[in-house]
Amino acid sequence: MSADVQHSIMLFGDSLTQSVWKTGMNSFGAQLAHVYARKMDIVNRGFSGYNTERAIPVFKQVFATREQQKHLPTVRLLIIWFGANDACLFHSPKHVPLAKFASNLKYLINLVQSDRSEYYSPNTCIVLATPPPVNTYQREAVLRSRKPPLQLDRDFETTRRYAETVKDVAREEGVGLVDIWTKTWDAAGHDERTLSNYLHDGLHLNGAGYQLMYDAVLETIAKTYPKLHPDNLEKVFPQ
Amino acid sequence: MSADVQHSIMLFGDSLTQSVWKTGMNSFGAQLAHVYARKMDIVNRGFSGYNTERAIPVFKQVFATREQQKHLPTVRLLIIWFGANDACLFHSPKHVPLAKFASNLKYLINLVQSDRSEYYSPNTCIVLATPPPVNTYQREAVLRSRKPPLQLDRDFETTRRYAETVKDVAREEGVGLVDIWTKTWDAAGHDERTLSNYLHDGLHLNGAGYQLMYDAVLETIAKTYPKLHPDNLEKVFPQ
Repeated sequence: MSADVQHSIMLFGDSLTQSVWKTGMNSFGAQLAHVYARKMDIVNRGFSGYNTERAIPVFKQVFATREQQKHLPTVRLLIIWFGANDACLFHSPKHVPLAKFASNLKYLINLVQSDRSEYYSPNTCIVLATPPPVNTYQREAVLRSRKPPLQLDRDFETTRRYAETVKDVAREEGVGLVDIWTKTWDAAGHDERTLSNYLHDGLHLNGAGYQLMYDAVLETIAKTYPKLHPDNLEKVFPQ
Repeated sequence: MSADVQHSIMLFGDSLTQSVWKTGMNSFGAQLAHVYARKMDIVNRGFSGYNTERAIPVFKQVFATREQQKHLPTVRLLIIWFGANDACLFHSPKHVPLAKFASNLKYLINLVQSDRSEYYSPNTCIVLATPPPVNTYQREAVLRSRKPPLQLDRDFETTRRYAETVKDVAREEGVGLVDIWTKTWDAAGHDERTLSNYLHDGLHLNGAGYQLMYDAVLETIAKTYPKLHPDNLEKVFPQ
């Protein structure tokens, strides 16, 4: 029962979000929490293994209803980061068809932005993040080493199309975008094998990858929602 | 307005608490947030420069009243970590006399534990933490290098007595204790100069020091409030 004195940033996503506190990985979550110390709290609502289908019912529990919002700290920024599981290949139970993925993202945005929604929150700014690119070589090697060996569950081109869809949805809905797919791809010199510099298993970001993510998030905040940039926020309690 | 779905651990203290998110320092905060991911949130209420005198009015704003508690996530664990500023030498404006320091800590505990208090919260477990030992040699060198040079504001023996007082208060009040003073002193082989292995400026913990803190906090939770140990908590939302 910490009192409602400080607003928050909610990170909502899959394992890429759940892992943001990991140290030894340039902890994206800790860096964010540090620059927002005494300004905003970072609330991690990352759920390993989740796709957007499973995310929707959980979002309705972790995001406050209009009635609940009266008593709770305001989520000033909501970063929605899915796609890494939705983009699983057709044979995987995690697979969500591309059109359904797009409509799920729109549905989540609508829950917060529509004044007819029970979760309507006009003071919440939304940012969508793309999934990082997949390194098929690295991913395949990891899955082959499992006992029993597993077949490839994601590929470069499919995830690229899910990342493109996130960008389309962000543009259509007029919300912020963190395009970590492109940032990582550019950093790797458009070479799939070189992506291993930013991914630890062909799918999840390593420390260098999370550093790109941190930089990209701050850049998007500065560009899209400058009032929420840490440099433009006062401390809740003075020195 | 994240909904009230997950309980929290509140870290309440001075700069030693405010800095727990710093990466490159074995981020104590991030490690704690990581082991409690999907179980409890870590709420940082660290205020650089604060002593217990300044902390009391702020606590009454950051900790929810009984009425507010009905709508807000429960603070299951409150870690109160002061003393580093209270133990400033007599000439410093941050100095709080030892007896007053003890009574302030008791006052804070009482705010949460007394059923006559507006902040009464019977489901909140309390842990007191001692300030780390001061390395006078290191601290003096840092202050001498300032422009203009500053005179020594803390010393080993005074902070030791404040740490002893924290231990006395924890015992008298029957709350948990994280004795980072002794952990650090033992790690340094009871040699003041060797404390520089655990302090970056003679006063604040470095990465190795925060690692001792993390280990000590988990040890205290396991011993004093085992139900709150991450191994004994279920995830709020299943896999």
